[in-house]
Amino acid sequence: MKGFDERYETLKSMCDGALETAVPETEAGRLADAMRYSLLGGGKRLRPVLYLAVLSSYGRTPSDVDMRVAAAIECIHAYSLVHDDLPAMDNDYMRRGKPSTHAAFGEAVALLAGDALLNLAFSLLAGCACEDACYARIMKLVADCAGAEGMIGGQALEFCSDMSSADAELLGKIARLKTGKLMEAAILSGCIAAGREDEYALWLEYADILGRAFQLKDDLLDIGSGERSLAFVLGAGAEAELDGLCRAADEKLAETGGDPRFLRELTEKMLKRTSD
Amino acid sequence: MKGFDERYETLKSMCDGALETAVPETEAGRLADAMRYSLLGGGKRLRPVLYLAVLSSYGRTPSDVDMRVAAAIECIHAYSLVHDDLPAMDNDYMRRGKPSTHAAFGEAVALLAGDALLNLAFSLLAGCACEDACYARIMKLVADCAGAEGMIGGQALEFCSDMSSADAELLGKIARLKTGKLMEAAILSGCIAAGREDEYALWLEYADILGRAFQLKDDLLDIGSGERSLAFVLGAGAEAELDGLCRAADEKLAETGGDPRFLRELTEKMLKRTSD
Repeated sequence: MKGFDERYETLKSMCDGALETAVPETEAGRLADAMRYSLLGGGKRLRPVLYLAVLSSYGRTPSDVDMRVAAAIECIHAYSLVHDDLPAMDNDYMRRGKPSTHAAFGEAVALLAGDALLNLAFSLLAGCACEDACYARIMKLVADCAGAEGMIGGQALEFCSDMSSADAELLGKIARLKTGKLMEAAILSGCIAAGREDEYALWLEYADILGRAFQLKDDLLDIGSGERSLAFVLGAGAEAELDGLCRAADEKLAETGGDPRFLRELTEKMLKRTSD
Repeated sequence: MKGFDERYETLKSMCDGALETAVPETEAGRLADAMRYSLLGGGKRLRPVLYLAVLSSYGRTPSDVDMRVAAAIECIHAYSLVHDDLPAMDNDYMRRGKPSTHAAFGEAVALLAGDALLNLAFSLLAGCACEDACYARIMKLVADCAGAEGMIGGQALEFCSDMSSADAELLGKIARLKTGKLMEAAILSGCIAAGREDEYALWLEYADILGRAFQLKDDLLDIGSGERSLAFVLGAGAEAELDGLCRAADEKLAETGGDPRFLRELTEKMLKRTSD
């Protein structure tokens, strides 16, 4: 087995390749430019790599269809960042060390590019569903995790809540929806694509643990900012909570019928990282 | 056969019924409220009625699955209006005689409600695709017609063009993408759901004619506004062009293997209407 870093880079560059060919030409060239700018401007490709890693843990080599699923999941992540950065939301002018999409292309084009990336995700997934029925189930899962009951629901809950007095329950709920749900979609899609829905419940538990731990780690990295977060609310207990979640994730991976080595290392890297 | 108006009202209220149950509960109640406000605030339900009318022209009774397809198409139309009305786009504070979604709920919630309606459309379609493979093809068609190469591409082309000097070719292209593509999706989806892909090319031609005529009629109703439109550019020839398109649509309907009566009347009502 190749070393972790090499294997991660291989999966990441496979995702990048799939993303580069995913954006169509458009009549208004600026729309396609803004879509590519938002999609290809770096990023860890964590969600598509999770999808491919779960699939590969069962010995499955990702097919061309799987690469389109991976690209679709990243399109959803990318659109959510574009819309989150807009002035009406977080009003962020920088993203990954570069001007955010609306800073570079203007608000209207950024809005439409975000819409088009979400739409592109489902166009890719629908194409996969035409080839094999299991991808229709994946598309349903991804749509539900990304929508009003999932990621968008989390964005709305955060926006509509008084975050200055949010308690651990509310913060946990926001994180589970806003950050956790799309990771859950990636992980469970990998399980479905591998034809291992018999282990669905296990992966659902792993996804829940990973999502909570990932957000807690994010909060801990950000704790100097003074923003009210789960790590802030948990205080001194946050590090111990994270350690407990890491162990629980590890145990869950060991219960699956696949080879958990890459995912175990991936989980560890995600949760022991020193930067966002 | 029932009278046209009665039949239209029946289909429209079937659509309304499907839409009322389509929006899920959300953790942030304002998100679901804004989705329902945008979706259930009136409207002619033209696109879902076109879907159901094509399907019914072949003697097919719309199933529960078909009603979800109809609802999905209307969700896409509704989201496009919500995002089009935003300050960064058309900055419209009124829609159908009521405050637009962002005027009623604020920009952030309107943005997220639009995202969630687009996402909901694909959740509904994916659910249908899980039940019957023909709906996976419908889902792919709808996604392509709604996206960067279709409706969103038309919105971007309009925003990025200098409309004060737009010629008939550019105005036609914008209308075909921005308005025509989603009608095309509705019509062709009806053909696929009816199992009559042998007549796909006929319906594609009908959709093209209808889309162009519909936009021209819109322009003619709006000609007093002084806005540069296809009717404005065509001048005195616009009415004759519309009459020609009406006849062409009629002839195309007569070529299909179904019963064209309801669609013929629908086409006529759409193109002879006296208000937007």
